[in-house]
Amino acid sequence: MNDCIFCRIVQGHIPAKVIYQDEHTLAFDDINPQAPVHSLIIPKRHVDSVHELQESDQALLGRLLLTCNRVARDKGLSERGFRLVANTGRDGGQTVAHLHFHVLGGRHLGWPPG
Amino acid sequence: MNDCIFCRIVQGHIPAKVIYQDEHTLAFDDINPQAPVHSLIIPKRHVDSVHELQESDQALLGRLLLTCNRVARDKGLSERGFRLVANTGRDGGQTVAHLHFHVLGGRHLGWPPG
Repeated sequence: MNDCIFCRIVQGHIPAKVIYQDEHTLAFDDINPQAPVHSLIIPKRHVDSVHELQESDQALLGRLLLTCNRVARDKGLSERGFRLVANTGRDGGQTVAHLHFHVLGGRHLGWPPG
Repeated sequence: MNDCIFCRIVQGHIPAKVIYQDEHTLAFDDINPQAPVHSLIIPKRHVDSVHELQESDQALLGRLLLTCNRVARDKGLSERGFRLVANTGRDGGQTVAHLHFHVLGGRHLGWPPG
């Protein structure tokens, strides 16, 4: 997936402000933040979106959410809280076709969520 | 957790428009929808929020996201897309202290997500 910007970040070909990584997941700050804290958490393996997920992805998905939680904690959001968001397809507003969760915090997030 | 409204839905003590359930997860429509499709996906076991998640919850979390994906598909959102949202704590706008994912679709979701 050489044309996928997030795969290229995983490979180190595009710089990013990496916050955390383990064998399966990578977290880095969004370059267009919508809140004082705005990080992205992705699987290192290319998956287009939530829509493509299969039963065999269960462990990876769990790991992804645990990484989200870790990033929120490391960013100091444990007490005040935060919002997780994953966009899929056009209506969801997905802009990069590599599954990613947004962690947003540091301000009050309004409702509805978009 | 008799005082938890979502636990009471799981137990069948409070009615809800249930869309799907399996051994570990339950999905039902939000009573205050913010989009043409707005469903909630919860673990049947009580967990306060994303913030309380532990390593041992990895499988449950993966299952939760797979249920989100199934609900989106069953609600006809596969082609146009959808947004997943999970609120934690005050800044996140969490209103029920039982972990839940929102699946929103049927209209374009704007940015920022709250």
